Amino acid sequence: MKSFVHVPEGSDFPIQNCPYGVFSTKDDAQHRIGVAIGESILDLSAVAHLFDGPALKSHQDVFKQETLNAFMALPRAAWNEARLTIQKLLSDDVTILKENPELRAKAIVSQKDATMHLPAKIGDYTDFYSSIYHATNVGIMFRGKENALMPNWKWLPVGYHGRASSIVPSGTPIRRPRVQLKPEGATEPTYGPSRLLDFELEMAFFVGGPATELGQPIPMEKTEDHIFGMVLMNDWSARDIQAWEYVPLGPFLGKSFGTTISPWVVSMEALRPYMVANPEQDPAPLSYLAHSDPYSLDINLGVTIKPEGGADHSVCKTSFKHLYWTLKQQLAHHTVNGCNVNPGDLMGSGTVSGPEEGAYGSMLELSWRGAKTIPVGDQTRKFLQDGDEVNLIGFCEKNGVRIGFGECRGKVLPAL
Amino acid sequence: MKSFVHVPEGSDFPIQNCPYGVFSTKDDAQHRIGVAIGESILDLSAVAHLFDGPALKSHQDVFKQETLNAFMALPRAAWNEARLTIQKLLSDDVTILKENPELRAKAIVSQKDATMHLPAKIGDYTDFYSSIYHATNVGIMFRGKENALMPNWKWLPVGYHGRASSIVPSGTPIRRPRVQLKPEGATEPTYGPSRLLDFELEMAFFVGGPATELGQPIPMEKTEDHIFGMVLMNDWSARDIQAWEYVPLGPFLGKSFGTTISPWVVSMEALRPYMVANPEQDPAPLSYLAHSDPYSLDINLGVTIKPEGGADHSVCKTSFKHLYWTLKQQLAHHTVNGCNVNPGDLMGSGTVSGPEEGAYGSMLELSWRGAKTIPVGDQTRKFLQDGDEVNLIGFCEKNGVRIGFGECRGKVLPAL
Repeated sequence: MKSFVHVPEGSDFPIQNCPYGVFSTKDDAQHRIGVAIGESILDLSAVAHLFDGPALKSHQDVFKQETLNAFMALPRAAWNEARLTIQKLLSDDVTILKENPELRAKAIVSQKDATMHLPAKIGDYTDFYSSIYHATNVGIMFRGKENALMPNWKWLPVGYHGRASSIVPSGTPIRRPRVQLKPEGATEPTYGPSRLLDFELEMAFFVGGPATELGQPIPMEKTEDHIFGMVLMNDWSARDIQAWEYVPLGPFLGKSFGTTISPWVVSMEALRPYMVANPEQDPAPLSYLAHSDPYSLDINLGVTIKPEGGADHSVCKTSFKHLYWTLKQQLAHHTVNGCNVNPGDLMGSGTVSGPEEGAYGSMLELSWRGAKTIPVGDQTRKFLQDGDEVNLIGFCEKNGVRIGFGECRGKVLPAL
Repeated sequence: MKSFVHVPEGSDFPIQNCPYGVFSTKDDAQHRIGVAIGESILDLSAVAHLFDGPALKSHQDVFKQETLNAFMALPRAAWNEARLTIQKLLSDDVTILKENPELRAKAIVSQKDATMHLPAKIGDYTDFYSSIYHATNVGIMFRGKENALMPNWKWLPVGYHGRASSIVPSGTPIRRPRVQLKPEGATEPTYGPSRLLDFELEMAFFVGGPATELGQPIPMEKTEDHIFGMVLMNDWSARDIQAWEYVPLGPFLGKSFGTTISPWVVSMEALRPYMVANPEQDPAPLSYLAHSDPYSLDINLGVTIKPEGGADHSVCKTSFKHLYWTLKQQLAHHTVNGCNVNPGDLMGSGTVSGPEEGAYGSMLELSWRGAKTIPVGDQTRKFLQDGDEVNLIGFCEKNGVRIGFGECRGKVLPAL
């Protein structure tokens, strides 16, 4: 499969990907829905009338919205039909768009000329804690080796509600927060800029499908109908406020000053070729959490830090396949109590750390709570400095096809 | 001040109150904004053209919306002008509405004929933990007397993010959740209906004013500009899942199966006469949390339980003035790290318990974790049973004026 739109070697966005996003241009400030292809964007608002399959022909208006929510709210059959239609429109073998210069001029936009926005209005944002390596590392640091994993951890995908308002798209600067914190050894807390600012390498999925009813769980066999697609997510964390505030009700101001996501939502259909066997789970999960179809994803992940005036330097590399709990298990658990979910809800994975040191997904783990330094080009870091720009990288690769997630970038501004 | 609309003795809604809500009627399914007066509702969509003061005359459309968000988003001066206009329209001394039978017929609706809806689209929902009596009681039960209050509790208003999607208006039944829980003494968790279903007597405030920018805290002296008004809130809790799941990231499925709020939002202006001196705080709060103007509220609170087929029976009585942290402190803390807030965000107080046993705001405390029974008419309870209907009561009273919150009611349905 090949597109008539040029896709450079190594691009994150070949015709096999076709991720959805929301963009505007200098000439047209209207937020509109697009699909990334190579270094271009197919503006779906300009080709909405071409979605004429049975699932979409009476729902073409979803492509003229300012967010993806209405499209996400359609059943999975509609997402799949949309993907096939888009791939057809972009195909080198199909003339509809390729040989219509007027429509092409309207519908194909350069990514260089576009500003990306949040892909959806996020109603509720949940963050899980599903990497056993991350949970173990943090547990050892804060509670010692014996109590590293809490007794519930292997029985349920631990998660918590996060702050939706402070989720921003890649490129938005993040202000170092002033907070209340209690430095180690101090007898009283003080108010000042966080000194232990960190990233967290995560991914997140957008909920799709019709909104569910309060009181109606999503059973395991229906979870797939409500998992729309994925993005990269940097769950910026201020470790010093986190340590002081989190008992007994969990993370709050240590996280809510900003969460960055990549703007392109990669569909689960695009990721299907990269699904691999799920990790072995011992103890066996309770019935409502059990599924045997492979839904772990072999997505290569990494983080770079670019010091002020410098270049991107890799600080860690890992894979999303290291997650202990699958997205299906996260969603089945989240709703088992009857909690309702809406299209556009975002569910984070938790920091994705791998088993080896270079595969840890946070400075907290990489610097082992500040005990080690991490090389960043010709500089070193224990935590993030003002001016540092963090980028997350995520891509799948097999048989010469690369499905990537684009950038998830944010620069640390000094505290006010 | 007296209204031409009949206000029965003891009504929650005299002309001094004028709370805002969203309603529809059998004859008109359109959701519209109204103000409660006695047993009636003033339909603001029918009198929008009469808001002709300087702050509102170019914003009359806010009264024609399906939620209060647009009205809440206006500056505080507009809220105050709206209140004065509404009191004028309803006044027995003013003829505009009183002597216009045609407009009256359109604008005055009986509460009996109305269905109440959520007053606002709630973007983010936060729940604090600001009653020292509640935090101490729960602390003693779960961690013993020595460690009852966590070291951070008196330094900052502890809070966490809650689930916005499952907030429902009074009258919505609540399904007993099936969850994963680990009964005391069991070696492994099981999946089944919660056995320790509880209410939590809370109040909550809606955020108002223009949305704030990410990275821009609301300083203490501006907090009042962002506190729109208050409702009663029942933060239904499943204690057995809560105890098992909450470490280390806080409450999740033990709460997210449903949260009930009263549908009428009582403005801070209406509550102003009931503001009393703030509780003494020792240690003195850090600078960003310090304020000396009285903002504690003497609101009488209570809970009734109505067993299936029975009547409402009081199980506790307390006052909102027992809260250790003020609403201003909650909001200043929430945003000190730059977290942005939007009009329509909801912030819960946490369970409001008073110092004496009869003033505890949850069954967990009233039954002391099941060690005692609570009389409910001729029955007894330790936790809630299927069919129990819980109602919260809240009102201020001074100089013969009663400002009430109406009902906050929900019936427990058996697990699916």
